[in-house]
Amino acid sequence: MSNTFGKLFKMTSFGESHGDAVGCIVDGCPAGITLSEADIQIELDKRKPGNGIAGTKRNESDKIQILSGIFEGKTTGTPIALITFNKDQNSKDYSNIKNVFRPGHADFTYEMKYGVRDYRGGGRSSARETLARVAAGAIAKKILASEGIDVRAYVKELAGIKCENYSQKDIDNVYSTELRMPDKTAEKKAQEKVLEAIKEKNSVGGTVEVIATGVPAGLGEPVYEKLSSEIASALIGINAAKGIEIGSGFGCSKMKGSEHNDIITSKNGKISFLSNNAGGILGGISTGQDIIARVAFKPLASIAQKQKTINTKLENTEIEIEGRHDVSVCPRAVPVVEAMMNLVLINALMELKARK
Amino acid sequence: MSNTFGKLFKMTSFGESHGDAVGCIVDGCPAGITLSEADIQIELDKRKPGNGIAGTKRNESDKIQILSGIFEGKTTGTPIALITFNKDQNSKDYSNIKNVFRPGHADFTYEMKYGVRDYRGGGRSSARETLARVAAGAIAKKILASEGIDVRAYVKELAGIKCENYSQKDIDNVYSTELRMPDKTAEKKAQEKVLEAIKEKNSVGGTVEVIATGVPAGLGEPVYEKLSSEIASALIGINAAKGIEIGSGFGCSKMKGSEHNDIITSKNGKISFLSNNAGGILGGISTGQDIIARVAFKPLASIAQKQKTINTKLENTEIEIEGRHDVSVCPRAVPVVEAMMNLVLINALMELKARK
Amino acid sequence: MSNTFGKLFKMTSFGESHGDAVGCIVDGCPAGITLSEADIQIELDKRKPGNGIAGTKRNESDKIQILSGIFEGKTTGTPIALITFNKDQNSKDYSNIKNVFRPGHADFTYEMKYGVRDYRGGGRSSARETLARVAAGAIAKKILASEGIDVRAYVKELAGIKCENYSQKDIDNVYSTELRMPDKTAEKKAQEKVLEAIKEKNSVGGTVEVIATGVPAGLGEPVYEKLSSEIASALIGINAAKGIEIGSGFGCSKMKGSEHNDIITSKNGKISFLSNNAGGILGGISTGQDIIARVAFKPLASIAQKQKTINTKLENTEIEIEGRHDVSVCPRAVPVVEAMMNLVLINALMELKARK
Amino acid sequence: MSNTFGKLFKMTSFGESHGDAVGCIVDGCPAGITLSEADIQIELDKRKPGNGIAGTKRNESDKIQILSGIFEGKTTGTPIALITFNKDQNSKDYSNIKNVFRPGHADFTYEMKYGVRDYRGGGRSSARETLARVAAGAIAKKILASEGIDVRAYVKELAGIKCENYSQKDIDNVYSTELRMPDKTAEKKAQEKVLEAIKEKNSVGGTVEVIATGVPAGLGEPVYEKLSSEIASALIGINAAKGIEIGSGFGCSKMKGSEHNDIITSKNGKISFLSNNAGGILGGISTGQDIIARVAFKPLASIAQKQKTINTKLENTEIEIEGRHDVSVCPRAVPVVEAMMNLVLINALMELKARK
Repeated sequence: MSNTFGKLFKMTSFGESHGDAVGCIVDGCPAGITLSEADIQIELDKRKPGNGIAGTKRNESDKIQILSGIFEGKTTGTPIALITFNKDQNSKDYSNIKNVFRPGHADFTYEMKYGVRDYRGGGRSSARETLARVAAGAIAKKILASEGIDVRAYVKELAGIKCENYSQKDIDNVYSTELRMPDKTAEKKAQEKVLEAIKEKNSVGGTVEVIATGVPAGLGEPVYEKLSSEIASALIGINAAKGIEIGSGFGCSKMKGSEHNDIITSKNGKISFLSNNAGGILGGISTGQDIIARVAFKPLASIAQKQKTINTKLENTEIEIEGRHDVSVCPRAVPVVEAMMNLVLINALMELKARK
Repeated sequence: MSNTFGKLFKMTSFGESHGDAVGCIVDGCPAGITLSEADIQIELDKRKPGNGIAGTKRNESDKIQILSGIFEGKTTGTPIALITFNKDQNSKDYSNIKNVFRPGHADFTYEMKYGVRDYRGGGRSSARETLARVAAGAIAKKILASEGIDVRAYVKELAGIKCENYSQKDIDNVYSTELRMPDKTAEKKAQEKVLEAIKEKNSVGGTVEVIATGVPAGLGEPVYEKLSSEIASALIGINAAKGIEIGSGFGCSKMKGSEHNDIITSKNGKISFLSNNAGGILGGISTGQDIIARVAFKPLASIAQKQKTINTKLENTEIEIEGRHDVSVCPRAVPVVEAMMNLVLINALMELKARK
Repeated sequence: MSNTFGKLFKMTSFGESHGDAVGCIVDGCPAGITLSEADIQIELDKRKPGNGIAGTKRNESDKIQILSGIFEGKTTGTPIALITFNKDQNSKDYSNIKNVFRPGHADFTYEMKYGVRDYRGGGRSSARETLARVAAGAIAKKILASEGIDVRAYVKELAGIKCENYSQKDIDNVYSTELRMPDKTAEKKAQEKVLEAIKEKNSVGGTVEVIATGVPAGLGEPVYEKLSSEIASALIGINAAKGIEIGSGFGCSKMKGSEHNDIITSKNGKISFLSNNAGGILGGISTGQDIIARVAFKPLASIAQKQKTINTKLENTEIEIEGRHDVSVCPRAVPVVEAMMNLVLINALMELKARK
Repeated sequence: MSNTFGKLFKMTSFGESHGDAVGCIVDGCPAGITLSEADIQIELDKRKPGNGIAGTKRNESDKIQILSGIFEGKTTGTPIALITFNKDQNSKDYSNIKNVFRPGHADFTYEMKYGVRDYRGGGRSSARETLARVAAGAIAKKILASEGIDVRAYVKELAGIKCENYSQKDIDNVYSTELRMPDKTAEKKAQEKVLEAIKEKNSVGGTVEVIATGVPAGLGEPVYEKLSSEIASALIGINAAKGIEIGSGFGCSKMKGSEHNDIITSKNGKISFLSNNAGGILGGISTGQDIIARVAFKPLASIAQKQKTINTKLENTEIEIEGRHDVSVCPRAVPVVEAMMNLVLINALMELKARK
């Protein structure tokens, strides 16, 4: 099911960057949930960058329409079709990328796999598809909220600058920042790095951290659909992601068992963990602690520098990708990471209910 | 499908550490493949540690039996049932872990999820289940070999000691080493760390790297079943894994686009890449380069030190886990990592064929 | 996957009878297939009844739009979104069915399952959803045609009148008949029965037969996804279907083995069967003969007679369903039966290729 | 998933008629269910024919073993592996069917599909595989019983003789009859027909009816996984089945809407239906009435008469199938029909819970 995510709360997306529309069908949503286009629009708007330092100042209205599955303001249990029509999708000139593989892009692999490709703006491989993820995630989020589950993401590191000092309040306000970084000092330094990269027509990498609170113990299957597997699959599947770690993550490789084991204690019958190296998951199943994961995003492949490459005739050539490009995918990836985590959790929650 | 891996070449495993048997059904294997128990046994034997420095000197014969799906030495296209009967599974005394949650283990989460658990040797959460993965992977490996695809894994880092200098030949011989490390100097240092850990009744973490060669371009679905997603799900789903990265991985977060983009060049119509930060995957689809991934494994949770914890009545208590324990999962995880990669690749290959 | 049909060539439908739109996403379609809206429209137009004797003379334009997955006239391997916007969907008054369960309709079961329902024109349970099936089936049909596979359906029996005498040519021209019956004599008699039913504000049942020619031997999985199972699931899943049989079907219950066994003979190395009681399927796998199936459709539940029923408060009441209604689903079901058979066959064909 | 049945309560079967073993893995069973081998054995024993009039007097002990998933008498939520070892599987001589395709058997289609086949006793296509279905169904049955759902099947018609007069008590005692027919008069007549068929080395067809009581309203998905679709797929997938109908079934084609619509009435707030032509399903969803379905089984293909056929070199030849054969599959199919219905219902029930 290559364009479907989830088994019980399923979303199937469609659409190319510069095709007629992008959207999805959400299938399996329980009936009776109050849902409006505004609930989804508020999440989609988080995909727009602030003042455009890291992202391009595109005027994307991305107005979502619900075409089915809602009646008199409530979900009916039938498929919810969500759609955003693209505007002016045919206006640009793509002749310079039509026959040339942009380095670091999926142009080459799509051509190898399919023999044809919609080269306009990256076609299906464009991050514009993440609009569908965020839209579907908004529905999952609403249901999870009613169960006390809340998912928050933010840029943890950008261009080598790491957020170290921040509070829960900083996380809560992260969408009002330019770079989606909760640590103001770090964000300032990162902005300098970003401006530097813009100047040299370059891009920068970073990491996004996501925390899910209120998750009950018992979510996730223990062997091949571990909660960790589902999260890893969902998050590394976001455009430009190259790594995913949970809890201690790659840091665990340098730790000892006595440090890494999270000790459980009890006080008046209420249990708590003294640490959370597990990132809220043991044996593939949620522990009841916060679930914590991080995703590494590569520096965006579209840079304005002249680069060597080959064309579709497999001849050596050069390419200069026109237009203004995002410098980092990270700020825009924040709501996408949240959406994917919401989609993972709603599925795990429904799977748990099925077996009760 | 919690105990099933794969969509076209599917394996469904069963069995608990100290139950009657561990095994799996492989469904979807093409007909006409020459296959014997020896083909599988050779891979299972790789799960046994060398001289027991990092792993326990268990006398696990793990004799595999094929119960179905093979006729006159060839696969028939019907399900292949593979089984290993456990020996002396009832002989031990588990009274000390019956009512106590071992720190860092899945004891607690299984209890929360299911209300009951087979506490003997970890039951279903034991790494003994990986026997089924390796058995199924052996079949996939045989088919992939006929298509020129070869998967090799090894311990890249152990207890903070990293392999830096090694050749393809060292990788080829890695199963004849004690710690499955291809760099002899690094292995020696790592052995010291391991002995140190044994002395302090502790365990150590590490990473395993896996390289798939001969993979054609075009494998993997581009959106929600990206080859990267499938690999991430498969590898982080191995017991004790906490992170997974592909190509540049987490290192990408500190790189710039101009460094990270792998430039494609052509010479006499034959193309090649000047680097492989992509780890062989762009836009979720294989590029034709080597696929490279790394998995981080936490230090094993079973340590002989006395640890604080709680019991099933949620009271504070202490536990001292008896018996001799592995110091690191890494050496034993090497064939499991290979098996999971083989299972991912055979599925991607079959999916590609379906759409031709 | 309640709103998804198929595993490799998947279609996920959405939309309610009187909602904004009805449509589907076709996922898994191979790349490089020439496809236009006209290819789909021609099939959709077959859903319109002739002169309205059996069906209502609705002016349904049902103009299909392709929103994604096609580039420069060819499929790209990415999801194909198909949509038809409903017109004037809010113009009618549904106050009489809002709170009353129409006998024989899904009103009651939707209410029991979901607690809410879109009562306008039956909402999701309306046969309007079959538009999506026919649209997706049109794509499958195009691919199957290139492999020499052709699927034809027609009304075999209506209101107790059975087609007995007809040629292949009559089948080829069935869409130019009023009742989609290839036997002109039978059709004439059936028309009388239909007019009779109209007079008494009633509806009639019937059967639709479907024949797939050019199907190679080897399609279908042998145990739980037998070709017969997939066909049965697909055809009995069409609105108003109550039975499905293959080959000899229910007639087999009165036959003996010596009559039922289809004898295979060979002439100059070319084999043929002396009969086709198997309906082209043995042990769940296609034999290479024509695949023949029949579906029984109940008389439509919407009749203009006054009927007893209950309302949503579970009180006894009466209902008179207004408007002019179809007398039988059969003529309109013909292209839907063809579409579902095409969807089954394309999936079986792709599954076969995957395992080569 | 050709050898897996179900999405939430999944069973994956393996094994050939004369291979080492037949069995299955049941995955997704809720934890905490009391379950023993005796619970399963009692159902398996129902597969044995009575005094052997219709079935062969094989001495099949079919002793089931549970290999995993049960701990201290209860299910643990982990996969339950069930196995029966075949005895003396290599003792027979199959040289006469090795290179010849038995008419009406799957020999030919397996050869076409796979190129190889285990010809011993039909290999995977043998009805011996249904042992796994009954074993898995026994677990489903136990869970359904705790929800008040009960499934009963019986031979409705055999060799043209139909059961007309019988009570619920007759159904309850059907396994104590020779032919699994609840109507004693009909059974007597059927026995004569069977003896007649034995005399002429022939076989007879029949139908099996299944009734599920206590099914709540709301089970089943409304579009592509209608409860009717799932039942049809499950029942027509049983060896030798050629048709499946629900409620009025094929009889509906001769009915009018005013006869067919089941009128709902209410008395003191308790609703009831005046008829059950729907067979307990409307719009794909259970109504709360009894679910009633019938399966048509062809006369068994193995008859002792000399038959024309071809061999694997595609030359004309003759075959005389040796040994004593069952005359009808129907009596043995009764527990298999029950098992498949139980597997359908447990999945539908879990799906409903998931969406609450």
